Amino acid sequence: MSKITVGIIGAGRIGQLHADNILRSDLLEVKYLADVSINHLKGTHYEDNIPVITEDPENIFRDPTIQAVFICSSTDTHAEFIKKAARAGKHIFCEKPVSFNVEETKEALEVVKISNVRLQVGFNRRFDKHFKKVREVVMEGKVGQPQLIKVSSRDPQAPPEEYVMRSGGMFMDMTIHDFDMVRYLSGSEVLDVTVKAANLVDPMFGRHGDVDTAIITLTFENGAIAVIDNSRQAVYGYDQRIEVFGDKGTVAAENEAQTNVQISTKDCVYLDNPKHFFLDRYKEAYIIEIEEFAKAISEGKEVVCTGEDGYRAELLALAASISWKEKRSVLMAELLTVEV
Amino acid sequence: MSKITVGIIGAGRIGQLHADNILRSDLLEVKYLADVSINHLKGTHYEDNIPVITEDPENIFRDPTIQAVFICSSTDTHAEFIKKAARAGKHIFCEKPVSFNVEETKEALEVVKISNVRLQVGFNRRFDKHFKKVREVVMEGKVGQPQLIKVSSRDPQAPPEEYVMRSGGMFMDMTIHDFDMVRYLSGSEVLDVTVKAANLVDPMFGRHGDVDTAIITLTFENGAIAVIDNSRQAVYGYDQRIEVFGDKGTVAAENEAQTNVQISTKDCVYLDNPKHFFLDRYKEAYIIEIEEFAKAISEGKEVVCTGEDGYRAELLALAASISWKEKRSVLMAELLTVEV
Amino acid sequence: MSKITVGIIGAGRIGQLHADNILRSDLLEVKYLADVSINHLKGTHYEDNIPVITEDPENIFRDPTIQAVFICSSTDTHAEFIKKAARAGKHIFCEKPVSFNVEETKEALEVVKISNVRLQVGFNRRFDKHFKKVREVVMEGKVGQPQLIKVSSRDPQAPPEEYVMRSGGMFMDMTIHDFDMVRYLSGSEVLDVTVKAANLVDPMFGRHGDVDTAIITLTFENGAIAVIDNSRQAVYGYDQRIEVFGDKGTVAAENEAQTNVQISTKDCVYLDNPKHFFLDRYKEAYIIEIEEFAKAISEGKEVVCTGEDGYRAELLALAASISWKEKRSVLMAELLTVEV
Amino acid sequence: MSKITVGIIGAGRIGQLHADNILRSDLLEVKYLADVSINHLKGTHYEDNIPVITEDPENIFRDPTIQAVFICSSTDTHAEFIKKAARAGKHIFCEKPVSFNVEETKEALEVVKISNVRLQVGFNRRFDKHFKKVREVVMEGKVGQPQLIKVSSRDPQAPPEEYVMRSGGMFMDMTIHDFDMVRYLSGSEVLDVTVKAANLVDPMFGRHGDVDTAIITLTFENGAIAVIDNSRQAVYGYDQRIEVFGDKGTVAAENEAQTNVQISTKDCVYLDNPKHFFLDRYKEAYIIEIEEFAKAISEGKEVVCTGEDGYRAELLALAASISWKEKRSVLMAELLTVEV
Repeated sequence: MSKITVGIIGAGRIGQLHADNILRSDLLEVKYLADVSINHLKGTHYEDNIPVITEDPENIFRDPTIQAVFICSSTDTHAEFIKKAARAGKHIFCEKPVSFNVEETKEALEVVKISNVRLQVGFNRRFDKHFKKVREVVMEGKVGQPQLIKVSSRDPQAPPEEYVMRSGGMFMDMTIHDFDMVRYLSGSEVLDVTVKAANLVDPMFGRHGDVDTAIITLTFENGAIAVIDNSRQAVYGYDQRIEVFGDKGTVAAENEAQTNVQISTKDCVYLDNPKHFFLDRYKEAYIIEIEEFAKAISEGKEVVCTGEDGYRAELLALAASISWKEKRSVLMAELLTVEV
Repeated sequence: MSKITVGIIGAGRIGQLHADNILRSDLLEVKYLADVSINHLKGTHYEDNIPVITEDPENIFRDPTIQAVFICSSTDTHAEFIKKAARAGKHIFCEKPVSFNVEETKEALEVVKISNVRLQVGFNRRFDKHFKKVREVVMEGKVGQPQLIKVSSRDPQAPPEEYVMRSGGMFMDMTIHDFDMVRYLSGSEVLDVTVKAANLVDPMFGRHGDVDTAIITLTFENGAIAVIDNSRQAVYGYDQRIEVFGDKGTVAAENEAQTNVQISTKDCVYLDNPKHFFLDRYKEAYIIEIEEFAKAISEGKEVVCTGEDGYRAELLALAASISWKEKRSVLMAELLTVEV
Repeated sequence: MSKITVGIIGAGRIGQLHADNILRSDLLEVKYLADVSINHLKGTHYEDNIPVITEDPENIFRDPTIQAVFICSSTDTHAEFIKKAARAGKHIFCEKPVSFNVEETKEALEVVKISNVRLQVGFNRRFDKHFKKVREVVMEGKVGQPQLIKVSSRDPQAPPEEYVMRSGGMFMDMTIHDFDMVRYLSGSEVLDVTVKAANLVDPMFGRHGDVDTAIITLTFENGAIAVIDNSRQAVYGYDQRIEVFGDKGTVAAENEAQTNVQISTKDCVYLDNPKHFFLDRYKEAYIIEIEEFAKAISEGKEVVCTGEDGYRAELLALAASISWKEKRSVLMAELLTVEV
Repeated sequence: MSKITVGIIGAGRIGQLHADNILRSDLLEVKYLADVSINHLKGTHYEDNIPVITEDPENIFRDPTIQAVFICSSTDTHAEFIKKAARAGKHIFCEKPVSFNVEETKEALEVVKISNVRLQVGFNRRFDKHFKKVREVVMEGKVGQPQLIKVSSRDPQAPPEEYVMRSGGMFMDMTIHDFDMVRYLSGSEVLDVTVKAANLVDPMFGRHGDVDTAIITLTFENGAIAVIDNSRQAVYGYDQRIEVFGDKGTVAAENEAQTNVQISTKDCVYLDNPKHFFLDRYKEAYIIEIEEFAKAISEGKEVVCTGEDGYRAELLALAASISWKEKRSVLMAELLTVEV
């Protein structure tokens, strides 16, 4: 089987992560790495291993040998690149969120649809082996009909101020993964979203009109109720836990610890902390994510996280923002009526 | 030290539990066991070990040698018995809730206050060694300022219909323990209550205007946000977990399993289920609860769960009912203005 | 059902423990508490609750209303009291070991046999719910034919020197419980015993010709191999774990922690230590132990730990001593040939 | 930094594993893959990615651009290849055991020494993050002076008969990893070895004069006592646990489960089994192992597992065989006197 040929747009942290995983992959091959500025790539192993490093992404769209584009640039450029890639007939892997604006996302998805290319959105957690197993257990009916879904999702440390300013807010930047997760776990769509949020970690968030701590409750078409708890700063490490409770039982995935070592002394029993952050915790998931993308293209089957999954998660983030600002439950029907 | 002399009103399941614990206690001595009907006590060990078994609780109030009354009768009789006991100068241990009506509770508490007796409300979970330790860790500041508080509280099986009819509803009957727990853990008072609830376990609950599944979010004066998840039926056993997350870390208490035995086979690794229900899980807590009551009386100090704790938990149950019925957040200030 | 009437000989720590449990029991009733000196019992609750406190155990043997004798005196007196009790027709509960001398034990057991009374030896760990469950799992064949049996048994702190001097040595005093446990778990008899032991905890043990650290390997008639590890001092608490590995799987019981509370901070995740020592860990087991004794008498059935179990554990302790001193494996057949 | 250039001898399971890891490595580069027969490599990705695939390993020794040789061929060829590689001035990574004969091993090590090349033996478990952390904790003195060391090491399934015939026996083939581990953890050398072993898993082992189940006790120069338990068949998965107990506490590493998912139902609580076998469990360790080898060469420092470590583990395997056959403890001094 020949490798899927890829161009990557965006060579920041996540773009480099994908580039490295593709370089080690048997299923994908990277031919272009594009960024608005390529100075930081000088002298790196990317120069040795990637044929073209460029500041012009059009090179990728123009190259007929390229089968897929990875969009890892800043969020405000995603929609435009999606449309260009789709029109050029390239399959697309796009980091989350698709855009900060659901209308813009919708437009981009329509171009994707017309162009008949695949679009996979970067919800890497769907490929985490623990979460995937929870999903399987739920789908096999082992815990019966889902009634309560719980997601704890806490970052180990607050991002820098400049990041926060461009992040789209906590719901769009961070909770969006959890919105996707509750949809993935429930196998159902959300009816309403209710947020209680606060600015407890750092006043900086408040200065930018953002929150850093939240409890988000969602009710689903199938009757289940989900709750997400978020914090921008869990000092003990990356806290990523889920539970699905149904009429036949409950299934939960605990955190991954750095090691399984336990030290018992006179004072205490010590365990290792959870893995530090997403690069550690989801290291394997990021690899499986792109392999599944490659397989979907090769085998002509649907991707695991579609553009619609991205769109729906954004709608939930939007609903959460409204709920928080207007201090009320927001029906998803309100948004769908108005905006789609 | 001589034992605290006690009369018990109500010889149902919980009354018998307290009677048995008192019979084994070095700190309390039971002289009366009263019930509206005493037929079911004939031939039991209570006849051999308790001096007076009676259908008239007035015997207890009249006896000047009785120091304390345990009120374990049906909830609709609590307030009246509290007032009588207080006026007779007896200290009072009253099962939760104090009453189904916050006004009635308030009145009873006023009589208690005037009478200068102690009133302890039966929030047994405060005496659970795991939960007590979590509270201590929080109060010592080991996890810093509380930001998120989580309580999972799920019964193993739905109560019978006749119980549901007289229960005051899930929030007043079951969640009331969790309302007390979040106050106990946060060391702060609730500002507002928001409920998402459903009838998923058994349509019987719905027929009585009740719910069986809920996510309840509460915000606190100190900024913390709490979330309680409830189900009337966790088929795997009694699920009782708490977590307090703060700016310096998080502290959690897991379920108590029936045993620590682990069986590993070709198919799976098996652990024992959580303890079945409250009589198993809180067996020790019920003993410590009454010993602490006895010590408070002997040493003239305040009880661990006061009448006010009972009252505030009832107010939260009331707020939850309103939130659920009116599908909105309820500010505690609304209730306090109107009703106290 | 009327209670089994009991006289207790020996009012030290373990005698008082049994006395307290009997005072709270619905199945047993203590009428005598005897000790070589009763000064330390003056003013205690035993004076209020036990009819006769005496320095003459003959009072117990003489009283025809006494059904059973608890022998909790120093080990060198056990055999003599067993014989007296048996000849007086009393059932016997005797603390471990039956004696320091297997010949003496054998003689005592013969008198018990002739007298047709029950003798239960105080192997309390058989009544621990975790260990009992492991035994049940093994007996039900869930892990198949036992191949490896592992016991970790470590005390939290070394006993005082005067205790060590009279203890009969670590194998007879401490490991004897583990010898019983491996027989209980395997359902088979030992063929040979091999010891590697050392004096690492405190030179005091060495001065008295004793060890404080050991690995003891035993092979069984059914082919299984067992290994016990012992230390007189596990600074983190009482370490009591077992595992039985067979051809269909493995079953293990972990330690009991003081609480299930987990604290996660920047530095570490902290758990509570195991329970401190046997009085905490086996609190429930001590209660079940005497209730099972009472039931065996009432129902005329065999006790769970017989005199023979006591004898065989002592033989294993003796074999261990020889193995350690002579630095070789000791066949149980050697001892049985020579001494029984 | 330029990559270390490598030739691999032996393209069976372990040779292919190293080849794949080197192909993805930033520190090593594979130029030759040699095997006695290369038919099975036809049409594989090795053909595309490795410059020379050959049946003649002399090609590797002759090539002056090759810096290091990986010896992954059958054990009986190891010593000869080590000597050739050393004489050709190549650094050596050799799979365990170095040979089946300690004299042969010794000779090979002498050639290595004279040739002034590095030799790393493939004790991959030293690079497991859990075991490495245990070693660090011990070396930092956090559990004090080691007194008891425990290793559980059980394979998930018995190897095929033809493998068993050429394996050198369980002690040399399987326990050799555990012998290295107890040396690594204790930081001390073994004084004596005592084996209790049996043929319980499959009579096939017995037919070849081998065992499949064992308890091996070792005493160390520093006073510690270690115990290894082995089985060729743990039906629940690869069981790899260690513990080091000292005067200040104990440190243990538990198994790695396939996932952290827990399913609770009416019947039971289910966890995932341990990882299936060494390729899963030690996947990361195998990568770190070769990276550490590369760094040792680049930086001119000693490797983590030296030829002497290989030699000493083989001596322990030999001592174990003698102990088992002669049913006695074997002093290491006996072997060292006779053979080195």
